[in-house]
Amino acid sequence: MPESSRNELTRRLRQYLDADNVIVDQESQRPYECDALTIYCDLPLLVALPETTAQVQQVLRVCHQLNVPLVARGAGTGLCGGAMPHPQGVLLALTKLDRIVNIDPLARTARVQPGVSNLAISEAVAAHGLYYGPDPSSQVACSIGGNVAENSGGVHCLKYGLTVHNILSLDILTVAGEALTIGSQGLDSPGYDLMALFTGSEGLLGIVTEITVRLLPLPEVAQVVMAGFESVDAAGDAVGAVISGGIIPAGLEMMDRLAIQAAEDFAQAGYPRDAAAILLCEVDGTREEVDQHVSQVANLFNSMGASSLTISQDEAHRSLLWKGRKSAFPAVGRLAPDYYCMDGTIPRGQVSFVLNEIHQMSEHYDLRVANVFHAGDGNLHPLILFDASDPNDVRKAEEFGSRILKLAVQVGGCITGEHGVGVEKLRLMPSQFSAEELLQLEDIKHAFDPALNLNPGKGVPILKRCQEYRALPARHQHE
Amino acid sequence: MPESSRNELTRRLRQYLDADNVIVDQESQRPYECDALTIYCDLPLLVALPETTAQVQQVLRVCHQLNVPLVARGAGTGLCGGAMPHPQGVLLALTKLDRIVNIDPLARTARVQPGVSNLAISEAVAAHGLYYGPDPSSQVACSIGGNVAENSGGVHCLKYGLTVHNILSLDILTVAGEALTIGSQGLDSPGYDLMALFTGSEGLLGIVTEITVRLLPLPEVAQVVMAGFESVDAAGDAVGAVISGGIIPAGLEMMDRLAIQAAEDFAQAGYPRDAAAILLCEVDGTREEVDQHVSQVANLFNSMGASSLTISQDEAHRSLLWKGRKSAFPAVGRLAPDYYCMDGTIPRGQVSFVLNEIHQMSEHYDLRVANVFHAGDGNLHPLILFDASDPNDVRKAEEFGSRILKLAVQVGGCITGEHGVGVEKLRLMPSQFSAEELLQLEDIKHAFDPALNLNPGKGVPILKRCQEYRALPARHQHE
Repeated sequence: MPESSRNELTRRLRQYLDADNVIVDQESQRPYECDALTIYCDLPLLVALPETTAQVQQVLRVCHQLNVPLVARGAGTGLCGGAMPHPQGVLLALTKLDRIVNIDPLARTARVQPGVSNLAISEAVAAHGLYYGPDPSSQVACSIGGNVAENSGGVHCLKYGLTVHNILSLDILTVAGEALTIGSQGLDSPGYDLMALFTGSEGLLGIVTEITVRLLPLPEVAQVVMAGFESVDAAGDAVGAVISGGIIPAGLEMMDRLAIQAAEDFAQAGYPRDAAAILLCEVDGTREEVDQHVSQVANLFNSMGASSLTISQDEAHRSLLWKGRKSAFPAVGRLAPDYYCMDGTIPRGQVSFVLNEIHQMSEHYDLRVANVFHAGDGNLHPLILFDASDPNDVRKAEEFGSRILKLAVQVGGCITGEHGVGVEKLRLMPSQFSAEELLQLEDIKHAFDPALNLNPGKGVPILKRCQEYRALPARHQHE
Repeated sequence: MPESSRNELTRRLRQYLDADNVIVDQESQRPYECDALTIYCDLPLLVALPETTAQVQQVLRVCHQLNVPLVARGAGTGLCGGAMPHPQGVLLALTKLDRIVNIDPLARTARVQPGVSNLAISEAVAAHGLYYGPDPSSQVACSIGGNVAENSGGVHCLKYGLTVHNILSLDILTVAGEALTIGSQGLDSPGYDLMALFTGSEGLLGIVTEITVRLLPLPEVAQVVMAGFESVDAAGDAVGAVISGGIIPAGLEMMDRLAIQAAEDFAQAGYPRDAAAILLCEVDGTREEVDQHVSQVANLFNSMGASSLTISQDEAHRSLLWKGRKSAFPAVGRLAPDYYCMDGTIPRGQVSFVLNEIHQMSEHYDLRVANVFHAGDGNLHPLILFDASDPNDVRKAEEFGSRILKLAVQVGGCITGEHGVGVEKLRLMPSQFSAEELLQLEDIKHAFDPALNLNPGKGVPILKRCQEYRALPARHQHE
């Protein structure tokens, strides 16, 4: 886009937004150049910071009229590059839409704007004995709008579900700036389920301006059982035993030796440093239920050969046990100049097999890997340690990561668990989906955004640019 | 379609299906003329009964090549006319695809064909201590494929969710016969959430050929608390008290006086005949949890002014209390020549207001109405009593029903809870959605079925035929 067009775009946007809220200067744009996947970054044409839904609508209309790409961004904590700016486009930061519009304790819902942080919702409704379920590690900072864009999960999604299971309706704006309400305040909604379609669509289909979230009653009590195991296989088998024992834990996490040692050095949580793997199993509910489940889980872990067993004695102890897990990423980060956090999902029964394969790949590539993950729902987070200043290391880390995700697909899993596709995993989508499946995804994109201006180059491949799909039937040749 | 075309279609289909499985004779077609909403019926051009997925694919390909409408049908227990045949089209009955393909107790999943009945899944997995959650009243007969098509619910969906919350992936065929797998075996899936989009889409987007369902551990124990109240308002307030008391019951049902008396005459379940309304609240879980919740619920009901209270003493007693509720529809059916079962959802806080409005409408139209419904999630089922042989009664019943659903929309609810839109509520979709929202639904339809051959005239209005949308922007003028 020539400079004159940028000037025209700026002039048009400043008719609706304060001058300070349209950032053209490159240095001031730096904070927006990437999300938390920092290896992918770029500067946008300009950054727009609307303060009201009406202003968001105006930004969309202007971009639509001028045929300019538009990338939405929440708090920028995403891990797949989904909010990386487009160099010829507008970066639409929604951080200033941060109002909690309404709380309805009887309906157990809250209406919030997209820039509200995940944790702020739970804090605002705590007085009613309620909270918002999904808890990404970044919940202090991440925005609920970003959670919707990536369908975020967290430790507790094993029991309480992902973002899509915890929202009821969305107010959205289409690429042309039309306002739609999708979903409903009830369990069901007539017509196609656009709300679920929209959740996790990474800003490719439209912009969320208000979210009605479902709230959960705060559990009376929660308790953690931690067990060490002498092999990853034994820990994997114990996960299966808990699940087939009829218990749905609030969270069931696994860490392997490298992760245990790094976390223990960092957090002094009392983890068994010599174990090959640990499991952290949280159960919540009424006092009676938790007592029963804690003893069931402890007995199961013992019968599966646990080498150590710790049960949280009070809230402070429970927090300490989680502190190790929650600081595992930065703790592992101290072991090497850089780490690459992967995110794939596999069937529970394949955990031992896949971890052994990852171990062999680690030797093959001569790169260390720490595994910290949501074992209960098979969501792996291998952390590949490497040195980003060594181009050979970078190439090996990327190849290692791709092989892990392709393996996940081979065993019946998928290339994401909760981080999304973004720019990071775009090239892996053809490993996950057949040509026909990708074409159906593309048709959906066209139904919302025929000019392909919303977050282009993320989430779902734009097939017209891929030579390999040229041979497909005529109905799919959109251009 | 001229007779020669029907002959050509029959000839082509019999290349792939046994002659017996292509029904042309009108008398043999009668069982397929309607679903359980019998006021809408028609005969198709022919009925196809494939026995394998490959045969379903051939039926789709033939219809696609000849540009023939196609309507899928499961067990025919649907309540919105979603499976009513198209007079120029093929009725695709999927009842012969009735295999349970695989059960995986560790992953807690089962892969099943669409013709398997809802209850058959639970029976097949009971030996593993598991069951399938959603339980429509018709669960003995209704097919899981039909459940997916209508996103069916049931008494227990308050706690365990609708069909979409209890399935993991779908194998589907597009209108052109392409095979896609949507969703995944894990919690999340990359790309747009086509599985949720597809669930509840009433056969308008494609045909389901295999479903991976999520299974739940059988609860250790379940118990019912039944309370009578002297007014509908008091019962409505008691529902609010349970929910805001932090309890998520497995089911929370309300019946009003006419429904109570009809059910009691029919089932002798021990219901209080003089109560204005009763609540049936089921809690399930561990023994300890259920004990605690039963006493909490009983205390709450007493403190909200319950005029009678009954707690199930054993499984036989629990079954008896449910027998009244489950036979309420046929029981009410004995009070008048015909009844019209409505299905709308309202916010919990509006239950008393809406029931009072319905009562006033009942006087206005001089038609009796019995209310039997899922109070916990605000899903109303008013049963309007009328005489179908009296044209004036039919007109009044339809108008009464429409007014109830429009009221549901006005108070923030929606025109369906679990029965779907089908042909019944198509005319009410513009009450629910704005023109822009309907256009977005139409764009989705075009992305899957550009020739509009899948179940035309159901679920989502085809706007090109509606004069009122002719004035809309050019992008929406598909033809």
